[in-house]
Amino acid sequence: MLVIKIGGGAAIGDAAHTNFARDLAALGEPAVVVHGGNAEFSQLSRQLGMPPRMIHSASARVSRYTDAATMDAMLMAYCGKVNKRLVAAMQHAGVNAVGLSALDGRIARGRRKPVLRGTEEGKPKVLRDDHAGTLEAIDPRLVHLLLDAGYLPVLTPPALGEAGVPINIDGDKLALELAETLGASHLLFFSDTPGLLADRDDETTLIREIDADAPEAALGAAGGRMVVKVEAALAAISRGVGRVVFADGRVERPVSRALGGEGTVVRMNAGTTHAPGGQPVGTP
Amino acid sequence: MLVIKIGGGAAIGDAAHTNFARDLAALGEPAVVVHGGNAEFSQLSRQLGMPPRMIHSASARVSRYTDAATMDAMLMAYCGKVNKRLVAAMQHAGVNAVGLSALDGRIARGRRKPVLRGTEEGKPKVLRDDHAGTLEAIDPRLVHLLLDAGYLPVLTPPALGEAGVPINIDGDKLALELAETLGASHLLFFSDTPGLLADRDDETTLIREIDADAPEAALGAAGGRMVVKVEAALAAISRGVGRVVFADGRVERPVSRALGGEGTVVRMNAGTTHAPGGQPVGTP
Repeated sequence: MLVIKIGGGAAIGDAAHTNFARDLAALGEPAVVVHGGNAEFSQLSRQLGMPPRMIHSASARVSRYTDAATMDAMLMAYCGKVNKRLVAAMQHAGVNAVGLSALDGRIARGRRKPVLRGTEEGKPKVLRDDHAGTLEAIDPRLVHLLLDAGYLPVLTPPALGEAGVPINIDGDKLALELAETLGASHLLFFSDTPGLLADRDDETTLIREIDADAPEAALGAAGGRMVVKVEAALAAISRGVGRVVFADGRVERPVSRALGGEGTVVRMNAGTTHAPGGQPVGTP
Repeated sequence: MLVIKIGGGAAIGDAAHTNFARDLAALGEPAVVVHGGNAEFSQLSRQLGMPPRMIHSASARVSRYTDAATMDAMLMAYCGKVNKRLVAAMQHAGVNAVGLSALDGRIARGRRKPVLRGTEEGKPKVLRDDHAGTLEAIDPRLVHLLLDAGYLPVLTPPALGEAGVPINIDGDKLALELAETLGASHLLFFSDTPGLLADRDDETTLIREIDADAPEAALGAAGGRMVVKVEAALAAISRGVGRVVFADGRVERPVSRALGGEGTVVRMNAGTTHAPGGQPVGTP
């Protein structure tokens, strides 16, 4: 069983949805899709006069402040436009998809952190009524029910918080926890890069493989958000997911290519190598 | 089994969602909810610089022109904000709701009519690329799967058209066809009036009951959209739905009240009566 995370970058639009849908129809394997929607969310928020407010924490994390009106925009972008356009593309390709948020059937519960502290454009800020938080628990019953009946679940944040409040959680984390809970053979993360890059500005520096037993070189080469992704992949493998691949969501047959070894493959005893013509890991 | 249509008027917001959720939690009966979202759709469209364009047909029907960008706004309003806010309210009340569009699991298929002809503000118009159409077929498999597992499905347009194109279909019609297909005992239509009114501007002219065997007086008193609603109710009863009620969606315990006889009850051998203090049917 595959768990597939499709990133919400601007490069992943209708054409990419069609590529994923056709590839999944041809493969015919049971799969769960988790998607983001950040580009659509940011665009809609700007159109509605609520440009993204990014708060930098003391630990250098960057969070988007999500008040109640911004959460409505998130629901509209993630659960409305992106979720249903992806489902429509799947249905057109013959895949019987069912689009859900993690609120539905209590698939994911989150813990809200209503007070957001940090700096905004260099100025200290304490913002209240934030609707972001952390994923706390997965209930896979609804996902199992749909898979067993032959449907392909297409899931997206937000998760369900206390008192029925939708919580903005990280989509990568949702995919990860689902892959672990469902015992997925593969967890594939698709975004608008060929995989993990030693130099994020140079697509020729693709890291081809990371050995989960000896990830130090890759972690040393990685910076910022990439460290988080590698650590998450390692955690998934330690909890039973067979293989994690970071792959390109902008190509035709994206799932088949990732299963065939394209992108950055994280697995046990892989040997840490680098792409032909790319930079060796550790020389960013 | 109840099928409940919650209208998408501006008066049916978060407070109404909470009332429905608490009432359904207390009742504990298997139910399917179908909702609209027209007020949110119109508001969002205006905010995005796409005010509603209403086209009047030769047969006096009024249709909203829905091009691809307007369909995205519909997906955002109906499937994003309204669907997920209603699911969150249900979850808060302890009802394990699952929010879906009629695209998901191919619940409803529609036939698109891409060319819309008529008049707009009195001027003849032929508009192409319309994404509205008519409901053609219901596949109840996913709804049955969820009901049998104890979930409460919360459904909304659009339906699935040819080539995976989302189709703007009438929500009342979706509720009606579902009630017939599922063999519902009750089909309850909630909106921002106490029920069907002999004089649409006077809430004291509530029509209390309509006898499905002798609906002529009610049909004679009704005008415009109300005739369509009464005819739809009569059709549902002729196809096996036990009772149809048009009821107030703005009150506490709305479902319990409608089941208790408040609103306009359409059933066999009801006798056509009028509300105490209201106008007799036939004197609008």
